[in-house]
This record gives sequence, C-alpha cells and structure tokens, in this order.
Amino acid sequence: MKRLSVFIAAFASVFLLAACGDGGNSNSSSSKNSSSSETQLTGQSDSDYYQSVIKNGHYLTSKSRGVNVQQDSNQLNLKSFEAGLMNISKKQFSTSKYVFQEGQYVSTDTAEKWLGRKTKSNPEGLNPAGKATKTPLYLQQMDEQDFLTQDGNSLKMSGMTIGLGINSIYYYQKQAYGATYQMKLSDAEIKAQGKKMASEVLARLRKNKALKNIPIVIALYKQAPDDSLVGGNFFAYSVNNGSSTSVSNWKSINAQNYVFPVASGQKGPSNNSDENDFSNFKTQVQNFFPNLSGVTAQAQYINGSLTGMNVNITTQFYSQTEIISFTQYLQSTASKYLPTGIPIDITVGSTTGVQSFLSRDTNEKNFTFHIFNSY
Amino acid sequence: MKRLSVFIAAFASVFLLAACGDGGNSNSSSSKNSSSSETQLTGQSDSDYYQSVIKNGHYLTSKSRGVNVQQDSNQLNLKSFEAGLMNISKKQFSTSKYVFQEGQYVSTDTAEKWLGRKTKSNPEGLNPAGKATKTPLYLQQMDEQDFLTQDGNSLKMSGMTIGLGINSIYYYQKQAYGATYQMKLSDAEIKAQGKKMASEVLARLRKNKALKNIPIVIALYKQAPDDSLVGGNFFAYSVNNGSSTSVSNWKSINAQNYVFPVASGQKGPSNNSDENDFSNFKTQVQNFFPNLSGVTAQAQYINGSLTGMNVNITTQFYSQTEIISFTQYLQSTASKYLPTGIPIDITVGSTTGVQSFLSRDTNEKNFTFHIFNSY
Repeated sequence: MKRLSVFIAAFASVFLLAACGDGGNSNSSSSKNSSSSETQLTGQSDSDYYQSVIKNGHYLTSKSRGVNVQQDSNQLNLKSFEAGLMNISKKQFSTSKYVFQEGQYVSTDTAEKWLGRKTKSNPEGLNPAGKATKTPLYLQQMDEQDFLTQDGNSLKMSGMTIGLGINSIYYYQKQAYGATYQMKLSDAEIKAQGKKMASEVLARLRKNKALKNIPIVIALYKQAPDDSLVGGNFFAYSVNNGSSTSVSNWKSINAQNYVFPVASGQKGPSNNSDENDFSNFKTQVQNFFPNLSGVTAQAQYINGSLTGMNVNITTQFYSQTEIISFTQYLQSTASKYLPTGIPIDITVGSTTGVQSFLSRDTNEKNFTFHIFNSY
Repeated sequence: MKRLSVFIAAFASVFLLAACGDGGNSNSSSSKNSSSSETQLTGQSDSDYYQSVIKNGHYLTSKSRGVNVQQDSNQLNLKSFEAGLMNISKKQFSTSKYVFQEGQYVSTDTAEKWLGRKTKSNPEGLNPAGKATKTPLYLQQMDEQDFLTQDGNSLKMSGMTIGLGINSIYYYQKQAYGATYQMKLSDAEIKAQGKKMASEVLARLRKNKALKNIPIVIALYKQAPDDSLVGGNFFAYSVNNGSSTSVSNWKSINAQNYVFPVASGQKGPSNNSDENDFSNFKTQVQNFFPNLSGVTAQAQYINGSLTGMNVNITTQFYSQTEIISFTQYLQSTASKYLPTGIPIDITVGSTTGVQSFLSRDTNEKNFTFHIFNSY
C-alpha cells in the first residue's frame, strides 16, 4: 500500500520515504515524528552531488566511520581518496538516478581486520603475513560507498564502490616508539598488490546476499607520502557486474597530482607551462603584498592535461581592509596569470583561519570571491 | 602634461597612474617598471568595495599597521571595528567616486602615543592621567581610512574616516603579571569620553595641511568584552566638513550584536523570534548529524531589526562525503528555518579548518555553497 512514493529529483528539498506506510493513518504529521521506518533524503541542489540518506531524522553514517582517520598520518590522503572515489562512482552511478549512502556493509570491526596484517589471530588481514621490518603493509585505507535506487516505496541497494588505498612508502618501526624507517614500494608492486586484494575483497563481498548481483566498482589509489602537500591518486578501477567474484577487467586512470612550486629534486609535470604560469602569478602576488608567508598550489593532471588547481595563500594580515584589497587584487591577477579552462580555488588564510576565498569554475571567465566577515 | 589619465571605473582590472609622467618617454613599458612615481589601483569588481592604492608595485599599507593587533585581546573587536568603520565610510564616500587608501597620516608612533595614558613623558596620550587601578583606559584602538579622488593625473586626499574604539570593560592589573581585575564602564561614560576624544583628535588632524579642509568622519565604537563571541558596535558618528576643529554634530547609530543561543544571564534582542528561528535550526541540524560540537551565530541588529547573521558550525567530521551531505542538508534546512531578507553566512569548520560554507545575500532566495576540496 503506497502512501508516499519516492522522488529522486534535482532541486528538491528534504523528501520523505515511508518504507512501511501505516495504511490506517493518513495523518501527514508522520513526516515529523521519527518512527523507526522513516527514511528521508537530504535533497539535491546541484547535479554534481548525490542526495544521501537520512534515517529516523539522523544522517546515516558509515558503518566503519573513523577507521580511515586513524589510519592516515597525512589527512590529505583521506580527503583526496574520498573525493576521488566519489568521482569514479559518478561515472558508473549517475547522480540523477542513484542516492548515495555511506558504506553500510563493511563494519568497523571488518575494516580493521581487513586493513591489518594476516596473522593467526587475524586470518582476514589483507596485508601479507610476515615481519613488520621485512614485509610491507600495502593496504592503508579503504572506503565503501553505497548506491541506492527507488524500488516501489523503498530504497534498494543497487551498486557499490570500494576504494583501496595502497602505500607508496611503507613506514615502520624496528621497536615500539623507536625511529621510523621507510621502505619505498615500486609502482609494479603497488599495482600487483592492489589488484590481488581487489579480487579477494570482491569475493568476500559477494558472499553477502544483498551484494550478490549488483555492480561493484573497485578502485585502486596510490597513497602520497606522509610529508606530501597533496594527496595521492587513483590509478585503476574495475566495474564488476552481475555475479563476478574475481576482478578481470581493469581500466587505468592516468592521474597525477603535483605541488607548485615544484620542490627541487621533486618531479614536476612533463609540460612546465602551467608551472610557469603559477610562478608568474606567485611573483606578482608576493611582490604586491608584504607578509605573505606562502603561495603554493595543488595541481591535478589527468592524461597529461591540467584539470584543476587549488591555490593556498597564507599570510599574517593586519586588518580586514587589507584582506578586502588583497582579495580584489587576486581576482584580477589570477584571471591574468593562471591557466584558463579549468576549475581553480584560491584560499587566503591566516593564523586565525580562512580570511577569504576565490573560485572559478571550468566554464566561467571570472573569479567570484567571498570575504569572511564578523560582526 | 597628461600621459595617462586615471580611470576610476567598476569592473576594471589593474590601472596605472603616472603621477609624474616623463613627457619624453612615451614607451608603454613604463607600466611595468617600478619607478618611484607609479601609483596603481587594485581594480574593483563589485560596487560594494573600494578600489585601493598600489604604490611602486606594492600595496600601500597603513602607517600604523599592526598597532591595533597588539591592542586587542579579542580579535573579534578588530575585525568588527574595521569592517564596521568601512560601512560608515561608505555612507559618506561613495565607492564609485572614491579610492580607498590605508591610513597614511597617523603613524605607528603617533597611534601608540594617542592610545596611551596622558603622562609627563606622553603628553599626547588621549586616555586620562591617573593611576592604573583607579582611572580606566577608555580608548583601546583607533583606525584611519583615507579616501582619494582623481585630480588631473594624480590622486588627491579628499576625505578621512577615523574610528575610536572605547572600552566597555577596563581590564587592569594591580601588579605586573598579577591577577586581572575588571572595571565596568557605563554607556554614559563611554559616550562622554569618546566624544571628548573625538574633538581632540579632530583638532590635532586639522593641524596637518593636507587635512585642513577635507571632510573628516569620526565614529565611536564600543568594544566588546574580551570573552565575547561577537565584536562590539559603533554607536555614534559625526561628519566634520570644511575646517571645523571641534565636533558638534553627532548622529547616533543604534546597533547591537548578539550571540545565539543567548547565554543565560546575557541580554538578548528585545524581539526573540529570530532567536527562536535560530534555535529551531540548531535543533534540526544537531539532531541530523552526530558529532556537532557547536552551532552558534553572530546576529547584528540595527534600529531593532535583524540585519545579518554569521552562523558557525564546528564539528569533527570523519569524511568528505559527510561534509558534502551535511552541506546539502544545511542548504535546505537554513532556507526553511533561518530568517529571510537578510544576508546570512554559514561556515562549517573542523579542527583542520573550514570545510564548507554557505551564503545567501539579502535579496537572494537560495543559499549557494562551496565545499573545500583537496587533490
């Protein structure tokens, strides 16, 4: 008996789903009480983003929430991993058809076991058995994203994306609280280990009845070193339809992240014209304003072309009027010097936090800006 | 001999002024070299903001730069004072006609003297002579804003705004490094002292030849206590035309800032419907999301009506996907619960900084948002 049907629409406010509608009670106040059967969606204002699931008035958080935060020394790997995984999901699961749900199938307990080393007491560990000083831990973080579709008057699990974050450098100690040693892992090793683990993960997930016949995307991410100012990058993914229990079909992703200015001894992009553009911008800006303590950028390349940039400017500003003038100056200078045709964010921060930011989307000509105010 | 004329135009990029044009050299490369005579403007993209002055390629910073930063224990007083003063300036000096210049007439040395207590060694001190434990310091910060207009091929000093920040609580120690004591100052005292100092400041400024005949606006600000979560407010200003050397004509400003939720024992706005709106919003948001450590707002009232709100949400987020979902949820919830017809900013921050923010201008219906990304 349908009482309310599910709308998965753009430009929507908060929607209500009554999974187990009480046929005898047509009172609309049910939209306000938190009965155990209530599922809502967050609403979607922008087709770039998924709607997501609210259960009983609360946001449905991930079952393995927080595990990755503990796992990653470099928080940039975390943000880059999660955002990048969502971009891969969007290729397979359109934001207009699917509702996003934080991972509900891999629990904290399971995630911790899988991320651990294989031992007698942890037979489920995906990292190879061996001594900490000899055998690296490859798998550093994992993330599950669920995708739901409308099925009558409820939501149905219809797709999943799993990300596996593989170390590029293995950090270890020879004794507790001792010095930290590094073991650099080759790209071939990272790739081989990631693919092996992906098949194992797929086989394990397929044992769950709900996941037996849905497409499961598995994506492999190479973690950036702990001291990197930019996160790592995805390098391969596979779409596993139907009931496949082992991954056979990999697609590569040719993505690189760089930090501008490129530090001496570090590898920069093969074409250095973007870096030159940034360098001219940086010189211009630093010449303009005293007390700029840093002008850096994260630059992302896909298939060898620049696809986006996050510029970070840190400074000790003395006044709100300086922030206003500086932001206006940045608006014209960024348009003049920075590469065009890509999305660019510029954040101006001081010791007391973000002071202003500017942003330009791919197809926009001008930067819009916002200056953070306080009464 | 005019070589380049000054354009003070909206939607402009960086402009060049050659105050002492070299008639013999018409080479346009002069726009690139930093001769001592070069003055540029920052450009203006929004009629809400002034263009400001670049000298020899550098931003022209205030002559008393940094003095206020040392003076203010509560940085909110600083931002609120400077931004508020600029709003008062805009009433007198239109952003389309005038160019803003950071204060160039009151030097660091002078500012420090004026802000000090009157003593034998500091006869210029604007704060009354007396013992630190008996006679309060009233004047806590001051700010100078200069306004220029085009005059032939150079810029001419054409207006000034001075802000005086008067303490509402005087903090003092009985002995060096000892306990801090408080002396509450009455509104009548604040007003009387501020007006007296304003006349003294005006008389001193008029002694400078460049300031003899320009309009000088003086505005009085009541500092918020050191532990306040919102800055103080301007309560009076005077426009002093021509050669007047003492202030006679005061206009009052009826502005109040509050923090929502209003703490017990603190005074809230007389009409509590805005606070109720905020409270409903807060409940809704906190119910939706776990781990929100704070939902507060700064609310500004002018003549008894709410004129703007800055909402601050702090949380420990675990993932980028949570930030995306939460921001989308905020967009619909804020539209539903928060007061309409006023500008509202909502900032979502965590221990690692600002994660996202939403903003709605006075005349807009919907909140736009930005989620801070990282590669």
